[in-house]
Amino acid sequence: MARPKPQAATLASPDDTETQFYEALQQGDLEKLMAVWADDDEIACVHPGGPRVIGAAAIRASFESMFSNGRIDAHPEKIRRVVSHTVAVHNLLERIQVMTDEGPRWGWVIATNVYVKTAQGWRMVAHHASPGTPSEMQEATAPASVLH
Amino acid sequence: MARPKPQAATLASPDDTETQFYEALQQGDLEKLMAVWADDDEIACVHPGGPRVIGAAAIRASFESMFSNGRIDAHPEKIRRVVSHTVAVHNLLERIQVMTDEGPRWGWVIATNVYVKTAQGWRMVAHHASPGTPSEMQEATAPASVLH
Repeated sequence: MARPKPQAATLASPDDTETQFYEALQQGDLEKLMAVWADDDEIACVHPGGPRVIGAAAIRASFESMFSNGRIDAHPEKIRRVVSHTVAVHNLLERIQVMTDEGPRWGWVIATNVYVKTAQGWRMVAHHASPGTPSEMQEATAPASVLH
Repeated sequence: MARPKPQAATLASPDDTETQFYEALQQGDLEKLMAVWADDDEIACVHPGGPRVIGAAAIRASFESMFSNGRIDAHPEKIRRVVSHTVAVHNLLERIQVMTDEGPRWGWVIATNVYVKTAQGWRMVAHHASPGTPSEMQEATAPASVLH
Protein backbone atom coordinates (compact mmCIF):
# COMPACT_ATOMS: atom_id res chain seq x y z
CA MET A 1 0.00 0.00 0.00
CA ALA A 2 1.37 3.39 -0.93
CA ARG A 3 2.17 5.40 2.12
CA PRO A 4 0.62 8.88 2.09
CA LYS A 5 3.08 11.71 2.37
CA PRO A 6 3.06 13.39 5.74
CA GLN A 7 0.95 16.49 5.85
CA ALA A 8 2.77 19.79 6.12
CA ALA A 9 3.07 20.24 9.82
CA THR A 10 2.28 23.49 11.55
CA LEU A 11 4.59 23.08 14.54
CA ALA A 12 3.44 26.53 15.64
CA SER A 13 4.50 26.01 19.25
CA PRO A 14 6.75 23.70 21.25
CA ASP A 15 3.64 21.94 22.54
CA ASP A 16 2.40 21.38 18.97
CA THR A 17 5.71 19.81 18.06
CA GLU A 18 5.73 17.66 21.17
CA THR A 19 2.19 16.50 20.46
CA GLN A 20 3.21 15.46 16.96
CA PHE A 21 6.28 13.63 18.28
CA TYR A 22 4.25 11.49 20.68
CA GLU A 23 1.44 10.93 18.19
CA ALA A 24 4.03 9.66 15.74
CA LEU A 25 5.39 7.25 18.35
CA GLN A 26 1.89 6.04 19.19
CA GLN A 27 1.05 5.59 15.51
CA GLY A 28 4.42 4.13 14.51
CA ASP A 29 4.60 6.80 11.79
CA LEU A 30 8.26 7.27 10.87
CA GLU A 31 7.71 10.16 8.40
CA LYS A 32 5.60 12.08 10.88
CA LEU A 33 8.22 11.45 13.54
CA MET A 34 11.15 12.65 11.46
CA ALA A 35 9.23 15.78 10.41
CA VAL A 36 9.51 17.20 13.93
CA TRP A 37 13.33 17.15 13.96
CA ALA A 38 15.41 20.19 13.04
CA ASP A 39 17.59 20.17 9.93
CA ASP A 40 20.96 20.08 11.71
CA ASP A 41 23.77 17.54 11.52
CA GLU A 42 24.18 17.41 15.30
CA ILE A 43 20.63 16.65 16.46
CA ALA A 44 20.91 14.11 19.25
CA CYS A 45 18.74 11.29 20.53
CA VAL A 46 19.27 8.94 23.47
CA HIS A 47 16.83 6.06 23.90
CA PRO A 48 16.44 4.56 27.41
CA GLY A 49 19.55 2.55 28.18
CA GLY A 50 20.92 2.99 24.67
CA PRO A 51 23.91 4.72 23.10
CA ARG A 52 23.65 8.24 21.84
CA VAL A 53 22.45 8.66 18.27
CA ILE A 54 23.60 11.69 16.29
CA GLY A 55 22.15 13.08 13.05
CA ALA A 56 18.90 12.54 11.15
CA ALA A 57 19.97 9.39 9.27
CA ALA A 58 21.00 7.55 12.41
CA ILE A 59 17.98 8.79 14.37
CA ARG A 60 15.67 7.62 11.58
CA ALA A 61 17.32 4.21 11.61
CA SER A 62 16.96 3.90 15.38
CA PHE A 63 13.23 4.64 15.32
CA GLU A 64 12.71 2.44 12.26
CA SER A 65 14.25 -0.39 14.25
CA MET A 66 11.97 0.35 17.21
CA PHE A 67 8.86 0.53 15.02
CA SER A 68 9.75 -2.85 13.49
CA ASN A 69 8.74 -4.21 16.92
CA GLY A 70 5.52 -2.19 16.94
CA ARG A 71 4.17 1.19 17.87
CA ILE A 72 5.30 2.92 21.05
CA ASP A 73 2.44 3.77 23.37
CA ALA A 74 4.18 6.68 25.12
CA HIS A 75 2.25 9.52 26.75
CA PRO A 76 3.95 12.68 28.05
CA GLU A 77 2.96 13.69 31.58
CA LYS A 78 4.03 16.16 34.26
CA ILE A 79 5.79 18.44 31.80
CA ARG A 80 8.13 21.06 33.28
CA ARG A 81 9.07 23.83 30.89
CA VAL A 82 11.82 26.42 30.47
CA VAL A 83 10.68 28.56 27.56
CA SER A 84 11.97 31.66 25.78
CA HIS A 85 11.12 33.22 22.43
CA THR A 86 13.44 30.86 20.58
CA VAL A 87 13.92 27.75 22.71
CA ALA A 88 11.83 25.44 24.86
CA VAL A 89 13.26 22.81 27.17
CA HIS A 90 10.74 20.27 28.41
CA ASN A 91 11.43 17.73 31.12
CA LEU A 92 8.65 15.18 31.36
CA LEU A 93 7.69 11.68 32.37
CA GLU A 94 6.70 9.33 29.57
CA ARG A 95 4.06 6.81 30.60
CA ILE A 96 4.65 3.82 28.35
CA GLN A 97 2.52 0.73 27.98
CA VAL A 98 4.59 -2.36 27.38
CA MET A 99 3.36 -5.87 26.70
CA THR A 100 4.65 -8.53 29.07
CA ASP A 101 3.92 -12.23 29.49
CA GLU A 102 1.46 -11.18 32.18
CA GLY A 103 -0.28 -8.72 29.88
CA PRO A 104 0.12 -4.96 29.41
CA ARG A 105 2.00 -3.01 32.06
CA TRP A 106 2.84 0.69 32.45
CA GLY A 107 6.41 1.83 32.73
CA TRP A 108 7.99 5.24 33.16
CA VAL A 109 10.73 7.04 31.29
CA ILE A 110 12.30 10.41 32.16
CA ALA A 111 12.79 12.54 29.06
CA THR A 112 14.31 15.90 28.19
CA ASN A 113 13.03 17.34 24.91
CA VAL A 114 14.58 20.48 23.43
CA TYR A 115 12.85 22.55 20.74
CA VAL A 116 14.14 25.57 18.85
CA LYS A 117 12.20 28.04 16.76
CA THR A 118 13.15 27.85 13.09
CA ALA A 119 11.82 29.26 9.84
CA GLN A 120 9.94 25.94 9.55
CA GLY A 121 8.36 26.20 12.98
CA TRP A 122 9.40 24.75 16.33
CA ARG A 123 11.64 21.76 15.76
CA MET A 124 13.15 19.17 18.06
CA VAL A 125 16.95 19.26 18.38
CA ALA A 126 17.40 16.81 21.27
CA HIS A 127 15.51 13.92 22.87
CA HIS A 128 17.24 12.33 25.85
CA ALA A 129 15.31 9.52 27.53
CA SER A 130 16.40 7.34 30.42
CA PRO A 131 14.68 4.61 32.41
CA GLY A 132 12.47 5.74 35.26
CA THR A 133 11.01 3.91 38.20
CA PRO A 134 7.74 4.34 40.06
CA SER A 135 9.60 6.54 42.52
CA GLU A 136 10.21 9.08 39.76
CA MET A 137 6.61 10.04 40.18
CA GLN A 138 7.88 11.64 43.37
CA GLU A 139 10.17 14.14 41.74
CA ALA A 140 12.56 16.12 43.89
CA THR A 141 11.47 19.73 43.97
CA ALA A 142 12.75 20.79 47.37
CA PRO A 143 15.66 19.78 49.57
CA ALA A 144 14.84 16.41 51.05
CA SER A 145 17.28 16.75 53.90
CA VAL A 146 19.80 19.07 55.47
CA LEU A 147 23.19 17.49 55.34
CA HIS A 148 25.11 19.66 57.78
CA MET B 1 37.18 28.35 57.62
CA ALA B 2 35.15 31.00 55.89
CA ARG B 3 34.31 30.05 52.38
CA PRO B 4 35.25 32.71 49.82
CA LYS B 5 32.38 34.00 47.75
CA PRO B 6 32.38 32.69 44.22
CA GLN B 7 33.96 35.07 41.78
CA ALA B 8 31.67 36.78 39.33
CA ALA B 9 31.59 34.38 36.44
CA THR B 10 31.96 35.51 32.87
CA LEU B 11 30.02 32.70 31.23
CA ALA B 12 30.62 34.46 27.93
CA SER B 13 29.94 31.37 25.82
CA PRO B 14 28.25 27.98 26.23
CA ASP B 15 31.71 26.40 26.35
CA ASP B 16 32.77 28.76 29.16
CA THR B 17 29.72 27.75 31.15
CA GLU B 18 30.28 24.08 30.50
CA THR B 19 33.91 24.40 31.56
CA GLN B 20 32.84 26.00 34.84
CA PHE B 21 30.23 23.28 35.42
CA TYR B 22 32.75 20.45 35.11
CA GLU B 23 35.45 22.34 37.05
CA ALA B 24 32.94 22.76 39.85
CA LEU B 25 32.19 19.03 39.82
CA GLN B 26 35.90 18.19 39.85
CA GLN B 27 36.53 20.65 42.70
CA GLY B 28 33.40 19.78 44.67
CA ASP B 29 32.56 23.50 44.70
CA LEU B 30 28.83 23.85 45.27
CA GLU B 31 28.69 27.66 44.92
CA LYS B 32 30.62 27.60 41.66
CA LEU B 33 28.35 24.83 40.43
CA MET B 34 25.12 26.62 41.25
CA ALA B 35 26.38 29.85 39.63
CA VAL B 36 26.12 28.27 36.18
CA TRP B 37 22.40 27.55 36.48
CA ALA B 38 19.76 29.93 35.11
CA ASP B 39 17.40 31.73 37.43
CA ASP B 40 14.23 29.84 36.51
CA ASP B 41 11.88 27.77 38.65
CA GLU B 42 11.77 24.92 36.12
CA ILE B 43 15.47 24.19 35.59
CA ALA B 44 15.83 20.42 35.45
CA CYS B 45 18.55 17.96 36.39
CA VAL B 46 18.64 14.18 36.03
CA HIS B 47 21.55 12.31 37.61
CA PRO B 48 22.45 8.88 36.18
CA GLY B 49 19.80 6.41 37.29
CA GLY B 50 18.13 8.98 39.54
CA PRO B 51 14.79 10.76 39.63
CA ARG B 52 14.33 14.11 38.01
CA VAL B 53 15.19 17.13 40.12
CA ILE B 54 13.39 20.41 39.44
CA GLY B 55 14.36 23.91 40.60
CA ALA B 56 17.48 25.44 42.11
CA ALA B 57 16.85 24.44 45.73
CA ALA B 58 16.37 20.77 44.90
CA ILE B 59 19.27 20.75 42.43
CA ARG B 60 21.54 22.33 45.05
CA ALA B 61 20.51 19.69 47.58
CA SER B 62 21.18 16.88 45.11
CA PHE B 63 24.73 18.06 44.37
CA GLU B 64 25.38 18.80 48.04
CA SER B 65 24.50 15.20 48.77
CA MET B 66 26.82 13.99 46.00
CA PHE B 67 29.69 16.20 47.19
CA SER B 68 29.30 14.82 50.71
CA ASN B 69 30.76 11.64 49.19
CA GLY B 70 33.60 13.54 47.53
CA ARG B 71 34.39 15.44 44.38
CA ILE B 72 33.22 14.17 41.00
CA ASP B 73 36.05 13.58 38.56
CA ALA B 74 33.98 14.03 35.39
CA HIS B 75 35.50 15.15 32.10
CA PRO B 76 33.39 16.09 29.07
CA GLU B 77 34.44 14.46 25.82
CA LYS B 78 33.16 14.07 22.26
CA ILE B 79 30.87 17.07 22.49
CA ARG B 80 28.22 17.40 19.76
CA ARG B 81 26.64 20.85 19.55
CA VAL B 82 23.48 22.43 18.20
CA VAL B 83 24.03 26.16 18.65
CA SER B 84 22.11 29.32 17.79
CA HIS B 85 22.44 32.90 18.99
CA THR B 86 20.42 32.21 22.10
CA VAL B 87 20.63 28.49 22.85
CA ALA B 88 23.24 25.75 22.83
CA VAL B 89 22.44 22.07 23.18
CA HIS B 90 25.45 19.87 23.92
CA ASN B 91 25.39 16.10 23.87
CA LEU B 92 28.57 14.66 25.31
CA LEU B 93 30.18 11.72 27.02
CA GLU B 94 31.36 12.25 30.59
CA ARG B 95 34.45 10.27 31.45
CA ILE B 96 34.23 9.71 35.20
CA GLN B 97 36.83 8.21 37.50
CA VAL B 98 35.27 6.18 40.25
CA MET B 99 37.02 4.47 43.13
CA THR B 100 36.37 0.77 43.48
CA ASP B 101 37.71 -1.94 45.75
CA GLU B 102 40.16 -2.72 42.96
CA GLY B 103 41.30 0.89 42.68
CA PRO B 104 40.24 3.72 40.35
CA ARG B 105 38.25 2.86 37.26
CA TRP B 106 36.84 4.96 34.43
CA GLY B 107 33.15 4.94 33.68
CA TRP B 108 31.05 6.70 31.06
CA VAL B 109 27.92 8.78 31.29
CA ILE B 110 25.86 10.20 28.40
CA ALA B 111 24.79 13.78 29.10
CA THR B 112 22.67 16.43 27.44
CA ASN B 113 23.43 19.96 28.63
CA VAL B 114 21.29 22.90 27.55
CA TYR B 115 22.43 26.52 27.84
CA VAL B 116 20.52 29.70 27.13
CA LYS B 117 21.84 33.21 26.70
CA THR B 118 20.66 35.51 29.47
CA ALA B 119 21.51 39.01 30.65
CA GLN B 120 23.90 37.28 33.07
CA GLY B 121 25.65 35.29 30.37
CA TRP B 122 25.12 31.75 29.13
CA ARG B 123 23.38 29.72 31.81
CA MET B 124 22.50 26.05 32.15
CA VAL B 125 18.80 25.24 32.12
CA ALA B 126 18.97 21.44 31.88
CA HIS B 127 21.44 18.65 32.66
CA HIS B 128 20.23 15.15 31.82
CA ALA B 129 22.72 12.37 32.49
CA SER B 130 22.24 8.65 32.10
CA PRO B 131 24.53 5.65 32.51
CA GLY B 132 26.71 4.79 29.55
CA THR B 133 28.67 1.70 28.69
CA PRO B 134 31.98 1.24 26.86
CA SER B 135 29.96 0.72 23.69
CA GLU B 136 28.76 4.30 23.88
CA MET B 137 32.17 5.27 22.65
CA GLN B 138 30.86 3.89 19.37
CA GLU B 139 28.04 6.33 18.92
CA ALA B 140 25.49 5.74 16.20
CA THR B 141 25.95 8.32 13.46
CA ALA B 142 24.74 6.42 10.43
CA PRO B 143 22.19 3.67 9.82
CA ALA B 144 23.65 0.46 11.17
CA SER B 145 21.43 -1.76 9.09
CA VAL B 146 18.72 -1.71 6.49
CA LEU B 147 15.61 -3.24 7.92
CA HIS B 148 13.58 -3.84 4.79
